[in-house]
Amino acid sequence: MKPAVKVTITGAAGHIGYALVFRIASGAMFGQEQPVILRLLEIPQSMSALSGVRMELEDCAFPLLHDIVTTDDPTIGFRGTNYAILVGAKPRSKGMERKDLITENAKIFATQGRAINDFAARDVRVVVVGNPANTNALIAAANAPDLDRNQFTAMTRLDHNRALGQLANKTNTLVSDISRMTIWGNHSLTQYPHINHCQVNGQPVFDQVSHDWAIDHFIPRIQRRGAEIIEARGLSSAASAADAVVDHVHDWALGTKDDDWVSMSVHSDGSYGIDEGVVFSYPVTCKDGQYEIVQGLELDDLSVSRLKASEDELRSERAIIAELLP
Amino acid sequence: MKPAVKVTITGAAGHIGYALVFRIASGAMFGQEQPVILRLLEIPQSMSALSGVRMELEDCAFPLLHDIVTTDDPTIGFRGTNYAILVGAKPRSKGMERKDLITENAKIFATQGRAINDFAARDVRVVVVGNPANTNALIAAANAPDLDRNQFTAMTRLDHNRALGQLANKTNTLVSDISRMTIWGNHSLTQYPHINHCQVNGQPVFDQVSHDWAIDHFIPRIQRRGAEIIEARGLSSAASAADAVVDHVHDWALGTKDDDWVSMSVHSDGSYGIDEGVVFSYPVTCKDGQYEIVQGLELDDLSVSRLKASEDELRSERAIIAELLP
Repeated sequence: MKPAVKVTITGAAGHIGYALVFRIASGAMFGQEQPVILRLLEIPQSMSALSGVRMELEDCAFPLLHDIVTTDDPTIGFRGTNYAILVGAKPRSKGMERKDLITENAKIFATQGRAINDFAARDVRVVVVGNPANTNALIAAANAPDLDRNQFTAMTRLDHNRALGQLANKTNTLVSDISRMTIWGNHSLTQYPHINHCQVNGQPVFDQVSHDWAIDHFIPRIQRRGAEIIEARGLSSAASAADAVVDHVHDWALGTKDDDWVSMSVHSDGSYGIDEGVVFSYPVTCKDGQYEIVQGLELDDLSVSRLKASEDELRSERAIIAELLP
Repeated sequence: MKPAVKVTITGAAGHIGYALVFRIASGAMFGQEQPVILRLLEIPQSMSALSGVRMELEDCAFPLLHDIVTTDDPTIGFRGTNYAILVGAKPRSKGMERKDLITENAKIFATQGRAINDFAARDVRVVVVGNPANTNALIAAANAPDLDRNQFTAMTRLDHNRALGQLANKTNTLVSDISRMTIWGNHSLTQYPHINHCQVNGQPVFDQVSHDWAIDHFIPRIQRRGAEIIEARGLSSAASAADAVVDHVHDWALGTKDDDWVSMSVHSDGSYGIDEGVVFSYPVTCKDGQYEIVQGLELDDLSVSRLKASEDELRSERAIIAELLP
C-alpha cells in the first residue's frame, strides 16, 4: 500500500471542518487506494470539540485513515504535511469594518504561512478557504519564502460548482453534461462567473440560454448564493464548501478531465492582463500535481471590465495588509 | 449508465441527515457508477432548512445526483423508493419518561411503515436510525403487511464501527486488520459488543488483549460512547452515525467482505435462541442484496446472559407499544 498522505486542516472542529474531515478520511479526496493521516489544528478554546471530532473519526473505522493528530500548535499541525487546507478564519463580528476583518485575518495567515514554510513537506500544496481567501493566500505565500508561491492557492471551486449546478438546472441537463465553466477574479461579490465558453453536451451554451439570462439572473445568483443559503438554513454553507475543497484538492493532485478545466485562485502570472501581485481565480487544467492557467480565451468588453473590477478589489485588499507582506 | 437508485432520507435537515445526504450524493453508498435520486423528507417546521440543504446539494455539482425531491408528505417522500433511511425521530425532552418516548416514536414509525407499504418500490430496503431504533423497525415492519419483514432493519453499525476503532487502538493495528466483530442485541445500553470471535491480522484476538480488558473497559466504553461524544462535542454523534448508515446500506446492497461479517439489527428468526418477535443485532453476511445471520458461533455463559438481557429489554419495549402492532 502507498505511504499515507498527510493532510492538515485548520478550523477542523468548525462547520466546514466537520463536514470535510470525514470525507477526506473516507477516501473522497485522494481515492480508495491512498491512505491518509489527518493533522487537525484548532484554536485552544475549540480543543474539546476537536477531541470529539477525533473520537467520531475513530468511530467510523475508515480503512484509509492511518493516524489522527490534534493540536492547537501550528508548528505541530503543519509538521511534514503534504496538503494544508486553511479553513479556520476570524468571522466578521457585528459592527466590524471590512478593513479590520482583512487585517485580523492577515495576521493569522501570515503566522500560518511561516509555520508552513518552516515545518511542512517541501512539496506541500496549500488551499485557503477562510475569507478573504484570495488575499489570505497571498499573505501566507509571502510569508513562506522557502516555498514556491505557486504552492499556495485559494478556493473558488464552490462558486464554480454552484455555477455548474445553476446552468444544469436552467438547461435541464446533468452537471456532467456541462464543461468549461469559469469563475474569474476574487472569491467575493466581484467574482465573475462566466459561461461564454461553456459547452452543454458539447454544444455552445448560447444555443440553450440567452446572454440576458446570464447577465441578469445567473451571475448575480452565483455571486449572492452564499447569502441565499444562509437565509434558508440559518447557517452558512458548510457541506457544499467542504465538497468544493475535496474537488479542488482532488483535481490538483489527480488531474482535471480531458477537454475541460476548473476554476482555482492562483498567483497571477500576468495572464489576461491581471496584476502579477494578486491571487486571482482563473480557469486551470491540472496534471501530475501541477496546474496551468488556460490561455487564449476570448473575452468581450464586458468581461474585461468585470475582471478589472475584481482585480481592483484585490489590489485594494492588498493595500490594506501591505505591511504584512515581507 | 445504470438507472438511478431512489433513496429516501427522513429528518434530512437534521444533524445526521445533513452529514448523510452529501455522502450518498457523492457516490459513497452505492459506488461511482450508480446514479442516485434523493427524496428528502422533513417535518413542516424544518422545510426551510431543508430547502437550504437542497441548494447546497445543487451547489456540489455531484455528477451522480440525478434529482432531488423535498417534501413533508410521507406519501410523496417514499414514492417508488428503493432505500428508506429513517433518521428522523422525536428526541427525549426534559422530564420525558422512556415509556412516553417509545410510544411517541412508535406512532411516527407506524405511519412511516404504512406509507412505505403503500408507496415504496416492492424491493425497498429500510434501515431505521432514529431511536429506539430496533423497536421502531419492528413497528414499521408490522405496519407494512404487503412487504417482507426482512426488508426492515435497524442500525447497529455505528456500535460495530466504534468497536473496531477501539480494538484497533488497543492493539495498535489498523481497523482493516480486524475481522469478525459483533454487536449483539439492542442498540441501547444493553447492547453486547463481543470480540471473542475477532481476529487481528488473522490471529485470535486474545493473543493480544485480555478477557478482563474486554469486560472491564471495552464493553462499557462502546456502550457509553455516545455519551462520551456528547461530553466532548456538546452535540451527539452526527458524521459518524451518517458514516455508519453509508456502511450499513453499502454492505447490504453490495455485499460484505469474504471471511468477515458486519452487525445489523434484523428480525430474529430464532437464531441463538432469541424471541422471533424482536429486531435484534446479529452478525450477518450480505450477498446480492440479501443478508444472512451467521450461524454456529459459540457463546459462553456470560455472552448468553448478556444476549438474554438485551432480548428482555426489547421484549419490554415491545410490550409498551403492543397496541400499535396490528
